[in-house]
Amino acid sequence: MGNVSLTKECDVVVIGAGLSGLQTATLLKEQGLSVLVLEARDRVGGRLLSHTLKNGARVDLGGQWLGPTHHRAHKVAQSLGEELFPTYNKGKNVFMMTGEKQVRDSFFPEMDDDIAEEIERAMDRLNELASEIDTTKPWAKEEHRAYDKITYADWIRQNTTSDIARDAMTFIAMSIFSAEAHELSMLHVLFYVASGEGIDTLINTEGGAQELRFINGAQQLPIGLAKRLGDDVLLNQAVTCVEHFSNNVVVSTHSLQVNAKRVVVALPPALAGRLSYKPALPGIRDQLTQRTAMGAVIKVIVTFEKPFWRDEELSGLASSTTLPLSLTYDNSPKDGSCGILVGFMEADEGRYWGTKTAQEREQKVIECLRDYFGSQVDRYTEYKELDWAQEEYSRGAYGGYLPPGAWSIFGEAVSQPINSIHFAGTETASQWAGYMEGALQSAERVSQEILDIFNMKQSHQTVN
Amino acid sequence: MGNVSLTKECDVVVIGAGLSGLQTATLLKEQGLSVLVLEARDRVGGRLLSHTLKNGARVDLGGQWLGPTHHRAHKVAQSLGEELFPTYNKGKNVFMMTGEKQVRDSFFPEMDDDIAEEIERAMDRLNELASEIDTTKPWAKEEHRAYDKITYADWIRQNTTSDIARDAMTFIAMSIFSAEAHELSMLHVLFYVASGEGIDTLINTEGGAQELRFINGAQQLPIGLAKRLGDDVLLNQAVTCVEHFSNNVVVSTHSLQVNAKRVVVALPPALAGRLSYKPALPGIRDQLTQRTAMGAVIKVIVTFEKPFWRDEELSGLASSTTLPLSLTYDNSPKDGSCGILVGFMEADEGRYWGTKTAQEREQKVIECLRDYFGSQVDRYTEYKELDWAQEEYSRGAYGGYLPPGAWSIFGEAVSQPINSIHFAGTETASQWAGYMEGALQSAERVSQEILDIFNMKQSHQTVN
Repeated sequence: MGNVSLTKECDVVVIGAGLSGLQTATLLKEQGLSVLVLEARDRVGGRLLSHTLKNGARVDLGGQWLGPTHHRAHKVAQSLGEELFPTYNKGKNVFMMTGEKQVRDSFFPEMDDDIAEEIERAMDRLNELASEIDTTKPWAKEEHRAYDKITYADWIRQNTTSDIARDAMTFIAMSIFSAEAHELSMLHVLFYVASGEGIDTLINTEGGAQELRFINGAQQLPIGLAKRLGDDVLLNQAVTCVEHFSNNVVVSTHSLQVNAKRVVVALPPALAGRLSYKPALPGIRDQLTQRTAMGAVIKVIVTFEKPFWRDEELSGLASSTTLPLSLTYDNSPKDGSCGILVGFMEADEGRYWGTKTAQEREQKVIECLRDYFGSQVDRYTEYKELDWAQEEYSRGAYGGYLPPGAWSIFGEAVSQPINSIHFAGTETASQWAGYMEGALQSAERVSQEILDIFNMKQSHQTVN
Repeated sequence: MGNVSLTKECDVVVIGAGLSGLQTATLLKEQGLSVLVLEARDRVGGRLLSHTLKNGARVDLGGQWLGPTHHRAHKVAQSLGEELFPTYNKGKNVFMMTGEKQVRDSFFPEMDDDIAEEIERAMDRLNELASEIDTTKPWAKEEHRAYDKITYADWIRQNTTSDIARDAMTFIAMSIFSAEAHELSMLHVLFYVASGEGIDTLINTEGGAQELRFINGAQQLPIGLAKRLGDDVLLNQAVTCVEHFSNNVVVSTHSLQVNAKRVVVALPPALAGRLSYKPALPGIRDQLTQRTAMGAVIKVIVTFEKPFWRDEELSGLASSTTLPLSLTYDNSPKDGSCGILVGFMEADEGRYWGTKTAQEREQKVIECLRDYFGSQVDRYTEYKELDWAQEEYSRGAYGGYLPPGAWSIFGEAVSQPINSIHFAGTETASQWAGYMEGALQSAERVSQEILDIFNMKQSHQTVN
């Protein structure tokens, strides 16, 4: 019976077997601490979820790309023997802008020189402002807090004049945050751009955050880490209560009670705020979690016998500021044994289409792909989708973002420990927040936080 | 032991014994349905909480005022024999603006005629725009959705030029929403102004939302309703799971299982989103609850032997755009047997001071009151405060508000039933949202929703 509780003891209990939680447990275990990872789902990986298609191809329904400077992620991949390969990006890109289709060998559609310059200026300005942000304390300077009082949409209005430039800058927000430009604090955008090494790095395939893919899927990272942790990872253990004291913690699930010295909450802030804490957490932390909303994205995977677009010298990269499937990439296996397109319905489009039936979505997605790639799309062999907002233990993707005003007043609370509670997760990272790399960086930060405490306690005990 | 569950049966189970939940149960019971109200706290009333001071005076630490058009609330008060009296507002008001103190017989401090006209124009424009909003569907018209893409701060920037006018319009947001102007969707502000019968009604004492007080405190309304409901209200029953089906629901707490036909979640949306639902609620509903953040306010009550300010022909109303205690009122008992000032630390000030110690807050509050009312303040006899953001089962006040973008895409989800789950609470009201009156109006709406279903089912069963 679920009512009979089993009691376990460990030094550190981790809530959430996503990449950050598993890496935290790994780092702490390496230093000799005993750990236990509690995962609500029946699988590890959080927003990393790989899937085998009917034809045997391996795809990611969640996060899938690594950039060249995601050093921590590369190191973990290497240690687990997971191989990467470059995202296919040969050939021309397709653009659907206000109904007109363009096929071009560039990141942006064709436009007047002055508009192209306007976009370039805005991007440069974004990078310049971001370069001044201290990503460990984005709120530290008054001139930066001023950007927390406006939305990214406000900033776009102030820094562009043409509709095309505005659409382009808005599109960037949707593709990076899966949120609308008017939902985002400008300071959050600057933080994120700084944390991701510049706007170009964030949006690019080659040399950027979308450069590399995992042959066996990105979920192999958490799966590999969990295998190593073995019995220290427990699935189907949704946490019902975190009872915390200054030097210990009791974490309960429906069937388990874990007594530990420290707990790491390795969940997106919105979900971290839903746990029941005793005593209740301070208002400043709670009000933060009330405001760190998750982006909304439906990821769709459409499979074909061949990557037919390659024959037409198309890269598979298509984008649109008008179609609900706003962005696609070639997602075929490394050997090109079949053709796969991955696409995204983001922000308001994702939310809207999330209220429709799977059949309606499939029809709309195929319609969009037909607009991008022509009638051969109709010969797709499999349609697969995942709406991350529907996932009880993610409630959105790609990540949590902050609306205007939140960084300035709640910034400190993002990763500040409370009693014996520590916070991890890619949303707490200062480098590559929102990415696998950020999850791993947060694990380093939080495990160091905890090791410092254990070392202090050791010295203290030695003195006594 | 908490593990041994008691099972109960009823037609409708209500989660939350705030005013909306209790009134819903009352209305349904009057129509012959069996009800059960589950309350997490050890008291009823939610954001209504009255308190007896050391000197015996009765004050409200939560909501306290009724306006003349709060007809439903007046009716409930009357039926319970609860008496009201006018908020004291004779004499002059005190203003602290950029360090300079003013004492004046008006709602705004002295200012140049052109600035006063500027503020009047902005207020008129706000009322004019609000009057066009359908408060049952604020997102219905495209021209109104445009206001959901900007913050109230944006609108102020666009509709005022002087700093003084901007400060005044910003102050209004803080005092109504306990949120910063840059946190609020302009559409939310318009909705709220429309729902509250115009900006003047919202901010005024005489003739407005702050006109009347309860002699025995506003919590007498929920206490009175709960008394009538008797054993149908259960305290200390935090809900752990809502298992919902198309025609029935199982609601669990640590010690109780309630089988019912329908459940009414009568919680602020942010807290409603934290319950565990099986199956998990649709993404559109969850993403809404991720975005309906609660305002932040610390309410302070400072007691004196006499309302000394009255002798100086001061009303007790003081306000400031610079001091952290931004607003005060005379809150003395009807008979003036002692002097009480009530004050508010709102939005960012409330959050900031919420991280300080009670002693630091008390010191700062007294300092502010001294700035407003002089050195007699030092002779206060009692200091009492409540920071609503710290309250586990409120997590802020006065209410939940929507940031840019939310009404447009999530509006429908605010009160739309899901399976056998219905939603009540002042945040779901179309009249006087955020006020006691809104809580009661939501109870009317949701109980009608449920009665319609029960009637339909009756007809259906008759046909069979």
